[in-house]
Amino acid sequence: MPSDAVLSWSLRARGARARVLARLLLAAGSVEEALARPPEEAAALAAASPAEVAPLLDPTPAPGLETARRRLEAAGARVVPICDAEYPALLRESPDPPPLLFARGRALGGAPAVAIVGSRRATRAGLEAARRIADGLARAGAVVVSGFAHGVDAAAHEAALAAGGETWGVLGCGVDVPYPAAHERLRARILEGGALLSELPPGTPPEAWQFPVRNRIIAGCARVVVVVEAAPKSGSLITARCAAEAGRDVAAVPGSILSEQSEGTNALLKDGAILVRDAADVLRELPDEDLVRLRPGSGPAAKEAPGPPDDPDAARVFLALDADEPRDADALAAATGLSAARLSAALVLLELEGLAEALPGAVFARRPARA
Amino acid sequence: MPSDAVLSWSLRARGARARVLARLLLAAGSVEEALARPPEEAAALAAASPAEVAPLLDPTPAPGLETARRRLEAAGARVVPICDAEYPALLRESPDPPPLLFARGRALGGAPAVAIVGSRRATRAGLEAARRIADGLARAGAVVVSGFAHGVDAAAHEAALAAGGETWGVLGCGVDVPYPAAHERLRARILEGGALLSELPPGTPPEAWQFPVRNRIIAGCARVVVVVEAAPKSGSLITARCAAEAGRDVAAVPGSILSEQSEGTNALLKDGAILVRDAADVLRELPDEDLVRLRPGSGPAAKEAPGPPDDPDAARVFLALDADEPRDADALAAATGLSAARLSAALVLLELEGLAEALPGAVFARRPARA
Repeated sequence: MPSDAVLSWSLRARGARARVLARLLLAAGSVEEALARPPEEAAALAAASPAEVAPLLDPTPAPGLETARRRLEAAGARVVPICDAEYPALLRESPDPPPLLFARGRALGGAPAVAIVGSRRATRAGLEAARRIADGLARAGAVVVSGFAHGVDAAAHEAALAAGGETWGVLGCGVDVPYPAAHERLRARILEGGALLSELPPGTPPEAWQFPVRNRIIAGCARVVVVVEAAPKSGSLITARCAAEAGRDVAAVPGSILSEQSEGTNALLKDGAILVRDAADVLRELPDEDLVRLRPGSGPAAKEAPGPPDDPDAARVFLALDADEPRDADALAAATGLSAARLSAALVLLELEGLAEALPGAVFARRPARA
Repeated sequence: MPSDAVLSWSLRARGARARVLARLLLAAGSVEEALARPPEEAAALAAASPAEVAPLLDPTPAPGLETARRRLEAAGARVVPICDAEYPALLRESPDPPPLLFARGRALGGAPAVAIVGSRRATRAGLEAARRIADGLARAGAVVVSGFAHGVDAAAHEAALAAGGETWGVLGCGVDVPYPAAHERLRARILEGGALLSELPPGTPPEAWQFPVRNRIIAGCARVVVVVEAAPKSGSLITARCAAEAGRDVAAVPGSILSEQSEGTNALLKDGAILVRDAADVLRELPDEDLVRLRPGSGPAAKEAPGPPDDPDAARVFLALDADEPRDADALAAATGLSAARLSAALVLLELEGLAEALPGAVFARRPARA
């Protein structure tokens, strides 16, 4: 259980004061060190004035302390200060990290984290896309971070759990508040195989304005934020903007131009977001320092260099082609003994593989090897 | 009617010889000038050896000349040499322009051309995307170039015509060859409101291997090539590569990561193709020199709701269709009294006109009026 001082911080330190607290804890290195400093020294550590630091050093319990403690105990929750080794390292480096995180469930692992967010009213295609990508990331050993909302978020959490992976649900209410009500089963499963996180004190109700705020925590935890589906002006676009501002990669899943739920994601792609079709596309964006922390052999496969064609018909046609003297289909058919249909298929294959080129008048030549 | 010399060229000049002919015609400036040059001078103009130029100056008629002439006359087709003012300027500048184009229909206008290509087995979303983009481009005054194939190509041609725009169908067979057979009505409409083009001599049958070849002409005509849907290893990807090699912009329409028909297009986007969601996204890519040649103030106008078709068979089938409850062909035949052949033709027409849609399991529904 957290000390009275930590719980009092969680109730008192919001806004500018939260930033002071974060700086103090990071500079002091531990809660105990921060509390042991004389006021002037604490102020210097936090790069703040003594007046700004004073409320954090106030030994009187904050109002609501006992209620908060009871709620935390009942929920089996704990507090993870920003100076703690368990606190997500990337979140610590983000522009506005919460000084304290309330956490329920398993200890937060140090594997690379990827956020998967999207519409609460996702299409079936969007839900399936979220599942596939979350499944692949979880199997690779990445943490799947999302917002515990209906739709894409729930699909991502569920798929990560089903794959035996770690997943974090970042809430826009207290970690003890049963919201969304319909997510009781998912909540129980996450508490077993992952964690629920919030910067808000226990008992904080799910006010709508808190959800965009917590999006910055989702973005802060993740190296890449993948938006699966998003209508125009959706909350997921806020998460994407937070990610961009935090210097994280923003990725989006392409979708039909006829689907409103893909308007936001297609707009992100138009604006330069990374296009991702599967988990491998996401993993390819991770820096080497993250890749080495994934499950061995689960990084993105290197692209194979194009070799001679495997297809036997294509190989025969390739041998019958010349780089300098183009030949027409009749000559190629005679040289290879292939029927028009098989010759045709082979030529298309060779063109696609960049091994043959079509010239004026429907004649074909071997394409010079690319540099 | 073209002269014997031009028709003989069209039968004799393939491959490397076609390149010599293109250089000769461009340097001489006209067919007459090219023919009037002494052999050494012609060779110098074409940057070729006298032996390479000799077959082009051979005054004996090429074998098949009379047949070709009869076919051209019967089809009302003409030959457009590369030195002619009507020859598309961008195609002339492309890496491997055909020295001669056979053309049917209206004279080729000089408006900026955009290619819209894609899968023959497009999804409903893909066909609708093709229609929307072609409609907007046609309304803006651009020429819509495509390959006169089933699926995306037909949808693009049809929508351009319906919007009163110009459209060119580039064929993989002779311009007089009735292929695809089911496209008779679209062919007639294009000949009225646009043009059919081919570099292949009249009577050339639609061998499949010629289609990748003509893709380079589609790409050559267009400033931007928009790929709407493409499965992996599809011919549209060849067109895209031709476009990139010709220095043209390659654009692709994003699609669901679950749809095989979007795998090729999403891969193009992943490789850096321009993402387009509508005609405005395409028009934005045109250089200023093209924009000034568009219709002034040419934003896409409000779309008309589709009405019943003019064709009497199609009108009967249209009335027998329902928007909510798809019906199979047997039920439609019973309801309309049409033979299988006439029913089939009517359904194709309705689909092309955007009035009916085929659903999985070969059932048909009336297409809801567009917003």
